[in-house]
Amino acid sequence: MTVKRILSGMRPTGRLHIGHLSVLENWVELQKDHQCFFFVAYWHALTTAFDRTAGIKENTREMVTDWLAVGLDPEKSVIFVQADVPETAELNLLFSMITPLGWLYRVPTYKDQVRQFKEQGRDIMTHGFLGYPVLMAADILLYRADGVPVGEDQLPHLELCRELARRFNHLYRPVFPEPRAELSRITVLPGVDGRKMSKSYANDIGIIAETEEIGQRVNAMITDPARIRKTDPGHPEVCLVHTYHDIYTRDRLAEIEEDCRAGRVGCVACKKLLAGSLERVLGPLRERRRQIAARPGYVEEVLAEGARRARAEAAKTMELVREAMGI
Amino acid sequence: MTVKRILSGMRPTGRLHIGHLSVLENWVELQKDHQCFFFVAYWHALTTAFDRTAGIKENTREMVTDWLAVGLDPEKSVIFVQADVPETAELNLLFSMITPLGWLYRVPTYKDQVRQFKEQGRDIMTHGFLGYPVLMAADILLYRADGVPVGEDQLPHLELCRELARRFNHLYRPVFPEPRAELSRITVLPGVDGRKMSKSYANDIGIIAETEEIGQRVNAMITDPARIRKTDPGHPEVCLVHTYHDIYTRDRLAEIEEDCRAGRVGCVACKKLLAGSLERVLGPLRERRRQIAARPGYVEEVLAEGARRARAEAAKTMELVREAMGI
Repeated sequence: MTVKRILSGMRPTGRLHIGHLSVLENWVELQKDHQCFFFVAYWHALTTAFDRTAGIKENTREMVTDWLAVGLDPEKSVIFVQADVPETAELNLLFSMITPLGWLYRVPTYKDQVRQFKEQGRDIMTHGFLGYPVLMAADILLYRADGVPVGEDQLPHLELCRELARRFNHLYRPVFPEPRAELSRITVLPGVDGRKMSKSYANDIGIIAETEEIGQRVNAMITDPARIRKTDPGHPEVCLVHTYHDIYTRDRLAEIEEDCRAGRVGCVACKKLLAGSLERVLGPLRERRRQIAARPGYVEEVLAEGARRARAEAAKTMELVREAMGI
Repeated sequence: MTVKRILSGMRPTGRLHIGHLSVLENWVELQKDHQCFFFVAYWHALTTAFDRTAGIKENTREMVTDWLAVGLDPEKSVIFVQADVPETAELNLLFSMITPLGWLYRVPTYKDQVRQFKEQGRDIMTHGFLGYPVLMAADILLYRADGVPVGEDQLPHLELCRELARRFNHLYRPVFPEPRAELSRITVLPGVDGRKMSKSYANDIGIIAETEEIGQRVNAMITDPARIRKTDPGHPEVCLVHTYHDIYTRDRLAEIEEDCRAGRVGCVACKKLLAGSLERVLGPLRERRRQIAARPGYVEEVLAEGARRARAEAAKTMELVREAMGI
């Protein structure tokens, strides 16, 4: 069986950085021969940040503009905001009624995340955060998706979604497919200081960073600390610049490695090369984004049309759900 | 301050019995000088019976027909089904995000009910059942009700609703009033066998019971066991028939009591008197119900108009909510 319908979402984090790029490139790849639903996980953002809602609207707009710049095609894919489909909340409520608490407490990430937030002095032990996997299941099953591109860390959530589909089908009547994990090779790119890439660490490179910004960020990258003079032999395996070359200058990787180990090319030149490679990828994105941003009302139009298509599909599912439950 | 807006609901239990009558009479009284929202707590029924949804639609129809027979006036009050207002599910989801789990586990009835159901071999420890007070708060606050008629046992739920209103107003911006408890003198009427009145015990008297059924049920009532012959002195304080006279033959209560204690009137005659009293109350209800049921599509019309009015109000609240949260 070919996977027919794919669903995936992202929280509204605002402008994206190149760490997000491999996820988006995967989406662009998927939309070629699948019916794709890509959504802004608007309400999900509240599970861990209900007290920090400022900017969520603007962040949504910025992120979707980036999506379009990278190549998500609103003619092919349904691009929408979760909160524009109120059926999501209804299905979430119905699923909530049939989800044993034990299932939720057993999700491995639950306790981890509660602890991580506690260390930051924040309490996220709310009914909504506990129910996060239920909401995720509603997102997926509302469109009766066959496949969901997930990273390894999301597998337990998807397993719970599959369990919920089975439980619903068993309690009432078969309505939902059991969506499969589309494991994709997502590259986790560290920030320029070697830590996790994040806007809040200011160690990210925006996907539409200007040439100058790219240069600055690359210059800030930590290279092999054992290499003092440019003629010293380098160790690419401990060099962040090399990690980036591995993705962005793949065609010349062997040569770069050799030159480094032999002390033939210094870090400054190597960084300049990387900045050029990044520019070759990001330049066209920047240009496309500029064009999109220049069309007033365009993103809003895309989202309105996406919401319309998503709701049409959601209404069909809810009809089946209510019929099956006899409500 | 006069209470302006009242909200109250009932689970769709099907045809009502006289045990429900005092609640409904209270509603009829309230609708005289308040703006009332009366709703069928459709989704609430799922919190404890997600696996028993059969008949929920038919039960809704029957119950609302009874409401109208008792005197709820769709011209005055907004009469609707919870599930016809999807905004409820959305507000429930948003509230869920700001409700600490501790609040829910501390509701006194939570553990009691879980235990009671466990004794019946049923597990209701779901995410939805835990979140029942959140859904109730959404029901109330969606219409920004000022008052909620509740029994003593519902006070902790209302307190949680008030806490949620305060928390929302504090986190974002003042949107919700803190609804007050309208404590009403609700008479708890035992079934004809002295146990809790319930259709499942077959010890109930339907509010539209036929004359013959009333007679049979009254005949089945347990009277003073010490009274063997009708000339034996009776003890009204242990007699179920007398408990009913206390409500339904109030104007002759002193006389009835005297005759019983003096052994002047026997239990059979006393029961006949009660059957007559019940008939005087239920006869007109039965007749009104017959008229309502004879109008095809009428109940559906009432509920459609109620849903329209409820949604208009819900939309206003959700506008304020989204604005306050910046979402």
